Amino acid sequence: MTHDKTTPSAPEMSWFAWGDPERAEALDPALRDLIVQALHADVSPIPPVEEADVDLPPSHLSDRLRELLAGIVGTDHVLTGDAVRLRRSGGKSTPDLLRRRSGQADPAPDAVVRPADHEQVQRLVELCSSEGVAVVPFGGGTSVVGGVDPLRGPFGTVVSLDLRRLDGLVSVDHTSSTAVLGAGLRAPRAEELLGEHGCTLGHLPQSFEYATIGGFAATRSAGQASAGYGRFEDMVVSLRMATPRGTLELGGAPASAAGPDLKRLVLGSEGTLGVITEVGVRVRPLPETVLDEAWSFPDFATGTEALRILAQSDVRPTMARILDESETFVGAALGGREATPGCQAVLGFEGTAEEVETRAGLVRRLMTGAGGTRLGPEPVAHWRENRFSSPYLRDTLLGAGVLAETLETATTWTGLLPLYEAMTEALRGSLEGEEGGAVILCHVSHTYPTGASLYFTVATAAGSDPLSRWDRAKRAVSDAIAEAGGTISHHHAVGTDHRPWMVSEIGPLGAEILRSVKSALDPEGVLNPGKLVPERS
Amino acid sequence: MTHDKTTPSAPEMSWFAWGDPERAEALDPALRDLIVQALHADVSPIPPVEEADVDLPPSHLSDRLRELLAGIVGTDHVLTGDAVRLRRSGGKSTPDLLRRRSGQADPAPDAVVRPADHEQVQRLVELCSSEGVAVVPFGGGTSVVGGVDPLRGPFGTVVSLDLRRLDGLVSVDHTSSTAVLGAGLRAPRAEELLGEHGCTLGHLPQSFEYATIGGFAATRSAGQASAGYGRFEDMVVSLRMATPRGTLELGGAPASAAGPDLKRLVLGSEGTLGVITEVGVRVRPLPETVLDEAWSFPDFATGTEALRILAQSDVRPTMARILDESETFVGAALGGREATPGCQAVLGFEGTAEEVETRAGLVRRLMTGAGGTRLGPEPVAHWRENRFSSPYLRDTLLGAGVLAETLETATTWTGLLPLYEAMTEALRGSLEGEEGGAVILCHVSHTYPTGASLYFTVATAAGSDPLSRWDRAKRAVSDAIAEAGGTISHHHAVGTDHRPWMVSEIGPLGAEILRSVKSALDPEGVLNPGKLVPERS
Repeated sequence: MTHDKTTPSAPEMSWFAWGDPERAEALDPALRDLIVQALHADVSPIPPVEEADVDLPPSHLSDRLRELLAGIVGTDHVLTGDAVRLRRSGGKSTPDLLRRRSGQADPAPDAVVRPADHEQVQRLVELCSSEGVAVVPFGGGTSVVGGVDPLRGPFGTVVSLDLRRLDGLVSVDHTSSTAVLGAGLRAPRAEELLGEHGCTLGHLPQSFEYATIGGFAATRSAGQASAGYGRFEDMVVSLRMATPRGTLELGGAPASAAGPDLKRLVLGSEGTLGVITEVGVRVRPLPETVLDEAWSFPDFATGTEALRILAQSDVRPTMARILDESETFVGAALGGREATPGCQAVLGFEGTAEEVETRAGLVRRLMTGAGGTRLGPEPVAHWRENRFSSPYLRDTLLGAGVLAETLETATTWTGLLPLYEAMTEALRGSLEGEEGGAVILCHVSHTYPTGASLYFTVATAAGSDPLSRWDRAKRAVSDAIAEAGGTISHHHAVGTDHRPWMVSEIGPLGAEILRSVKSALDPEGVLNPGKLVPERS
Repeated sequence: MTHDKTTPSAPEMSWFAWGDPERAEALDPALRDLIVQALHADVSPIPPVEEADVDLPPSHLSDRLRELLAGIVGTDHVLTGDAVRLRRSGGKSTPDLLRRRSGQADPAPDAVVRPADHEQVQRLVELCSSEGVAVVPFGGGTSVVGGVDPLRGPFGTVVSLDLRRLDGLVSVDHTSSTAVLGAGLRAPRAEELLGEHGCTLGHLPQSFEYATIGGFAATRSAGQASAGYGRFEDMVVSLRMATPRGTLELGGAPASAAGPDLKRLVLGSEGTLGVITEVGVRVRPLPETVLDEAWSFPDFATGTEALRILAQSDVRPTMARILDESETFVGAALGGREATPGCQAVLGFEGTAEEVETRAGLVRRLMTGAGGTRLGPEPVAHWRENRFSSPYLRDTLLGAGVLAETLETATTWTGLLPLYEAMTEALRGSLEGEEGGAVILCHVSHTYPTGASLYFTVATAAGSDPLSRWDRAKRAVSDAIAEAGGTISHHHAVGTDHRPWMVSEIGPLGAEILRSVKSALDPEGVLNPGKLVPERS
């Protein structure tokens, strides 16, 4: 096996786990005992096979194709080594990691291709379209919905189009508060480059350490401070995308009535319509002050109601979350704190010192009026320190035989608690049985005037057939979401995993629209086959 | 000629002018003298011909089609009388009104059809698609870009699909702050119905008195308080649209990552993809307090910079406008006030009393720091009283031989003043000559973190051939907008008038996307032919 260079801004991710292999940890025996007790089940470790023992399909790249690809990106950037192909064989959902731990890495791409710039991407997608080669765009590889699975569809060859070299800060316009960023820029590096100009995107999803700007755009990402900074799609002011039919350049004006906003078709297109190469975004000044506050509420319903009041007021925190009773309890336990009774909310304020103080003052009145008790900043500090580490804990648990996965949706405020109940019931019903039960945690982390998201974390014993076990739960909860009128994804996107629910999300005619746009831009269907766009039934 | 019933919420508009015929006024002789002096040209009245003398093409509706249409909506709602067809023969741009004043009403629809509900609209578009009948959706008829011109394209028959009967408040969800509104609801009636529930949309464009909810959605409308309430498209949470291929129902969740946001394809589709029948919107509580403040700035550049600072801060007014030197001067003259030197800005704050006071305090500090002088509320009161009357003044001027028209765009803050200069120059260059000059006024009325709109009002002597005269100016200024990177429309939409600039706006591939979606939803091309979607070149 050959190892390729890792990215400039972060170590290459583990092939069977999230993130930096150096940061992997074993499960604390006391925590293990607690979990076993909570799950009413014994658990057995699930160690990964040796990398050399992974069942990786050989590359089918023909010499002719290799030469054509190398003609565009250069020989050094057409990679067919096993190590690099293994690391582009899929994303980071729990099923993905379970499969790889057990030595399954099929499908794998026939090659990983690393273009240097938009022009090379444009030539690559045209070549792949005319040669019938499936193209799977690859940014940070953080998908948890199968979005980067190297599916080849009806084609003989599939390449993973790694965008890491498109990692420049193309331009900054201080007056207009905008910047143009390369699609392959990882979020921490983007923040570093913008920080040199005194700016920030303020976009910090849990995938922050690895995710890329192009991935944020392609999947309609939402960051933890979405209450203040908005969803990623709302920051986007312009886009550049390479398609087999040519380059699409959109946007620039802050608002327009010149027909439908076609940027919104690119945002969320998940590599099925083209490869996003540059993203123009609104930026903001680095905040002068960050003020955190934890609050306590007697129960989830009261706390959720408080967040609704905030979201519908004109003065809001930059970040607002409320944990349900279970997540409040577990969060305190993991943080080594005594759990306060009821539910904990976490608020953050960013801005100038004066403006933060004013907003915080108004918000405190609303929170107190809604039944909240102020706890101070300490619990938030623990959350901030660990905000990107949950995926590592998931691997720790998985290694110990505990399947931990997340699920998310959004709905109206009116529908929120009924959906919470329906999802909890679907999860419990599908996971409880001979192989033990499930620990189900939930929080609301994204609020809007008309509704909010629900983010579930589920832990259960992996059992004898963890993939089937999770598949059963995932199907039950997805059906429950669709039935209750929630969206099938608030920020994880569609990929392969949510595709079966797309017709219930947008209707058969909505699916027809997606297919018609795909036919117009990708007539041969080489772009990310098998993802997002429902097949004609 | 037969007269049909007028709408429930407002009198039928004049066939040759904006709005309520009862509100038409003659030009004040003193104002006429001032204008003649400013334009360096004499002007001659342009009286409308008698309605009986209008050259209205006869209806080509066949008996068979009449029967088929009546089978869906009932005989009473298939109208072919001259008066009703004349009043559906186009919109309200200055060229529209000039044509009608001179007795030209060709094209006119062969029939005006008034469905009662979504099901009837759905059956109508299916019928028209299978029978090859062009369908022009008609809401308030306020288009100033040719959006409701009854073009028949390649079809033998064209019907105007009048949505006035879809005028219900379908539902209100107080918890989620949403309401579902019929597409044919006029804005004042929508506010009345929402007001009974203590709610408002806060959407007040200049067309407010006649425009409909469906029209707002179909054209990506922006209201005068967009700084606080947002653009109409940002309020939309769900949509129902009838297409020849079936009904499209979208949205509900406050946010989603389930593929591209297809609502954004419907918003701005201008009746070319389907007929919007219901719109789910975010609503807000009726404001407790409205606080207005006028400000003065030494010049347009300083005032614009102040608005930029506000738009990029986290605490904003609900409404923010800045008039250039000319518009400040003319505004004061029309209001019978002495003009303050420099430029006037207008701010409005809405919300709870406490929150308004807090925001206004922070904003005052920013405005003062940016070189503004506070003038108090009086000039804003005059603006509020007359905010919907400018179109009446336009008709008064037109009747007297003065062509007055508006133009609008948006661009980044960096590009704003250069675009302002380029547009002014294009207007001046194309209008100054033997037939006199032009009075050119401009304001910024919609601000965003990354840029703002420019709204021009141009007055010039109608001259010997006013249609050609204006066409020349419109083409020159539209080319200047495209060249400078502005959008061809910030809120007037595309219709027929801006269609030639759509390819420069979205590129040939963007145009291909629009055509592909249109083919999917309207395979026969019966929906609003000749509007928005560029033809294959």
